[in-house]
Amino acid sequence: MMWRPTTFLAALAAAILSVSWSAPPATAETEPALQHPDQQAQARAKLEALETKFGKTPNILIMLVDDLGWGDPGIYGGGVMSGAPTPNIDSLAEGGLMLTSAYAQPTCSPTRATLMTGRLPIRHGIYRPPMYSEKGGLVGEITAAELLHKAGYHTALVGKWHLGESEAQQPQNVGYDEYFGFLGVCDIYTEWRDPYFNPEVVYSPERTAMIKAAPYSKHLVKAKRGGKLEQLEEITIPVLANVDQQFADYTVEFLQRMAKDKQPFYLIHAFSKVHFDNYPAKGYHGKSPGKYPYKDGVVEVDDIVGRIVKALHDNGLAENTLVFFTSDNGPEEDMYPDTGYTPFRGGKGSTWEGGVRVPGIFSWPGVIKAGRESDGLFDLADMFNTSLALAGVRDAIPADRYIDGVDQTSFLLAGDGISNRRSIFYYLNDKLAAVRWNEYKAHRYIVEVGNGQYEAMGSMQNATIQQAAKSIFYNLYVDPKERQAVTIRKLWLAPILQGEMARHKATLMRYPPKKPQVTLE
Amino acid sequence: MMWRPTTFLAALAAAILSVSWSAPPATAETEPALQHPDQQAQARAKLEALETKFGKTPNILIMLVDDLGWGDPGIYGGGVMSGAPTPNIDSLAEGGLMLTSAYAQPTCSPTRATLMTGRLPIRHGIYRPPMYSEKGGLVGEITAAELLHKAGYHTALVGKWHLGESEAQQPQNVGYDEYFGFLGVCDIYTEWRDPYFNPEVVYSPERTAMIKAAPYSKHLVKAKRGGKLEQLEEITIPVLANVDQQFADYTVEFLQRMAKDKQPFYLIHAFSKVHFDNYPAKGYHGKSPGKYPYKDGVVEVDDIVGRIVKALHDNGLAENTLVFFTSDNGPEEDMYPDTGYTPFRGGKGSTWEGGVRVPGIFSWPGVIKAGRESDGLFDLADMFNTSLALAGVRDAIPADRYIDGVDQTSFLLAGDGISNRRSIFYYLNDKLAAVRWNEYKAHRYIVEVGNGQYEAMGSMQNATIQQAAKSIFYNLYVDPKERQAVTIRKLWLAPILQGEMARHKATLMRYPPKKPQVTLE
Repeated sequence: MMWRPTTFLAALAAAILSVSWSAPPATAETEPALQHPDQQAQARAKLEALETKFGKTPNILIMLVDDLGWGDPGIYGGGVMSGAPTPNIDSLAEGGLMLTSAYAQPTCSPTRATLMTGRLPIRHGIYRPPMYSEKGGLVGEITAAELLHKAGYHTALVGKWHLGESEAQQPQNVGYDEYFGFLGVCDIYTEWRDPYFNPEVVYSPERTAMIKAAPYSKHLVKAKRGGKLEQLEEITIPVLANVDQQFADYTVEFLQRMAKDKQPFYLIHAFSKVHFDNYPAKGYHGKSPGKYPYKDGVVEVDDIVGRIVKALHDNGLAENTLVFFTSDNGPEEDMYPDTGYTPFRGGKGSTWEGGVRVPGIFSWPGVIKAGRESDGLFDLADMFNTSLALAGVRDAIPADRYIDGVDQTSFLLAGDGISNRRSIFYYLNDKLAAVRWNEYKAHRYIVEVGNGQYEAMGSMQNATIQQAAKSIFYNLYVDPKERQAVTIRKLWLAPILQGEMARHKATLMRYPPKKPQVTLE
Repeated sequence: MMWRPTTFLAALAAAILSVSWSAPPATAETEPALQHPDQQAQARAKLEALETKFGKTPNILIMLVDDLGWGDPGIYGGGVMSGAPTPNIDSLAEGGLMLTSAYAQPTCSPTRATLMTGRLPIRHGIYRPPMYSEKGGLVGEITAAELLHKAGYHTALVGKWHLGESEAQQPQNVGYDEYFGFLGVCDIYTEWRDPYFNPEVVYSPERTAMIKAAPYSKHLVKAKRGGKLEQLEEITIPVLANVDQQFADYTVEFLQRMAKDKQPFYLIHAFSKVHFDNYPAKGYHGKSPGKYPYKDGVVEVDDIVGRIVKALHDNGLAENTLVFFTSDNGPEEDMYPDTGYTPFRGGKGSTWEGGVRVPGIFSWPGVIKAGRESDGLFDLADMFNTSLALAGVRDAIPADRYIDGVDQTSFLLAGDGISNRRSIFYYLNDKLAAVRWNEYKAHRYIVEVGNGQYEAMGSMQNATIQQAAKSIFYNLYVDPKERQAVTIRKLWLAPILQGEMARHKATLMRYPPKKPQVTLE
């Protein structure tokens, strides 16, 4: 009989599964979680005590910054070193759990969709961000917000959407009880208004008129569940500069309301900053030691984090609210100097660590032990499963689709919990580009930077996707910057990493990929 | 009249001096310090109160790790992320002042000489480390230890010396009342004993005999001021593995003695680890999450930091002791995987930030405010001036030579003190390679890595020193990794940075460089 590697790998994957993983729940197929019964019991006891005390399941508040680099917060090695101190973000981490291996997708909209649906882009179909009236949203997907609404939560989104603009795709129609923000991404409102970057538009009335006539949303908007979108201010440069202050005001007011509400809440506060182009808000011009608009933006974001956390405390919500602070991808290095900092290789748009590893801070005073740090794997998809678990509605996870998230409740809540996730899968559009297992990563496809002016920055300027001649392995502990390939000396890794890939690909056989949703129609 | 740039620059330098700097002291010429009268008054008041309370000037304890990368401690972005948690180093920083811009020299011995003499290598003549009986030490130099001894301090060095082996060059003859350690660097004792790296020596009795016959110190040694060196154990691989434990035992015992002493003390605790080759100490094999010997070494160093700090507290010394924790240069990337982590470009041996920027943590409970972080410039030379100032013997600074250090007492001690140093000067051997002023750096010479197997690691493999075609400027806040040169857009920097270089070069006219001291004779 011939030796058949796929059979071998499938058998290996099955063996791994049978030893250390539980069976997936009968009602739904999710990424199988590592089982840690002791920490699960600890977490359960904490949640039961809280529900007895507060008479409801906990609130969930997700703060999602745009394009913030892993290294930007002081606690991750930036802060004063990189010209933008972040005392509030640092305090949040010191008072809770700081993750060093939290993972987003390489770009914005794919990450947001994954955060909301618990599914990787290959499944939700948002392979890249929609721009200027392109189609592409969450229609057909089921968000955590929708399931939590059904479970009695008040669900809200404040800030950036960027997951489709047609009526069916708008936040109030895919799960959110209330929404205030903008539907696109900050640069599409203002880039063509900026006389420095786009004089050929600004000084041409015809071109300006053409862009203004294009059918995409150009205003701040708000809406209530199922209702019609209300158009507010048009987003000009001065409006954009201060929009995060408006979002912060909204969220603070929201928290005041929620303090009096019997319902628990689920809120995503999605910053506009520090996506390019950064225009400093009132009072923030040159406020950072670094002085550049990006740095002033980091300081503003940090101040807002402080305001929101204070509002939780002032309104008696902190003890019953899980807070998660993160970013949607690595720094956009092509926009130098309007870009953040990652110590890792590559930036936004790549599956090098610099593109996808993001700050990940969990805080919950009295519930999550202060001062914890963990390199345990966490995919932003895990927020889907974790949110439903916290709400006590694990069974609401839909059974007709594959969910890539795992429930990380016990990792977060147990005193010294460890991650329930075994692997991270990295995608470049529809290509499974890499896998990480413990500190090892295998690349099958990589992004290599071309001959652009900023080639040395490591982002996407003239970059190409290249297929590895053979898998490229790195040890991320000894070589966090992915520079010294170790493949030939670590062949023992091959069956493990390939086994993980085979397991993942098997799910795509059972649940075929969704066709790309983002299209210029 | 022709425009003469040198005259212009000299005038500019003079103008800068006259506006913001004090005149150098009449008795000695040191690097002129920025003057901050308010923080100086604060520091003075604190020191006077302490002297009243303790009846003596404060103790000084310097912990100097070997080849530890800026990024290795958790508080600098490594720790659990890079497979070696450092809770004790992190606590030390959280309880005091964490510097993000502390600077060493690109290699070991030059840094040690600078730390001890307050002078850059161009002045003390140790341009590179002496190896295998090469000449080269501090003869003719005046150490802080010597001046502090004269001021009534008990001075000690524990651990690595690596500043010359001849009698006149030994620690007990250049300022230290007591010494326990080894005279060289760990790899020269063991590399030729290691059957993996040097089988051609290990399995050749003739070669082994030749190396053993070479006239360099191969033992642990100890000595008292002015006395003869006593030879202890020969340093084999198992001895080297545990030597940092012996050093730690010595220091803990030293602190117990000092607690009963009327004299204040000045102690440099110079680790053997985490210089290659790292052999795990007893109990440390695989103790780190990363498992590699380097990572186990970081965990051991961190445990020892914890032991030493605890000994300060247990013996009632903490309140009257300035603690400084640092490293002698960036990670030795050529030794992958036996190497540390820096987020910056380049490693040991280069004047990229990765080569010279080191962790710098000051702790002094009740005196240095907890939780401080600063990007203020600090050169390890500054420890010379600062130590003498703390001892109340500023006037002891020798007047016959230039001192590159500045007194940083007020930076360290004032509640929110800022650095008294204006610029950092970077040397590659005898070449002034770069200057940093605030967040800007100008390179005149750079190290470029060649085509070695580890070319991507950024250290010295097949590297060359290259002269910049024109100065290369980087903004270290927006671009900490030194990738996007900004020279052509920041010509306003040219007179400032060139003015700093001109000022520095003028000191070399008044005090000509010392000839290289490290020679194979």
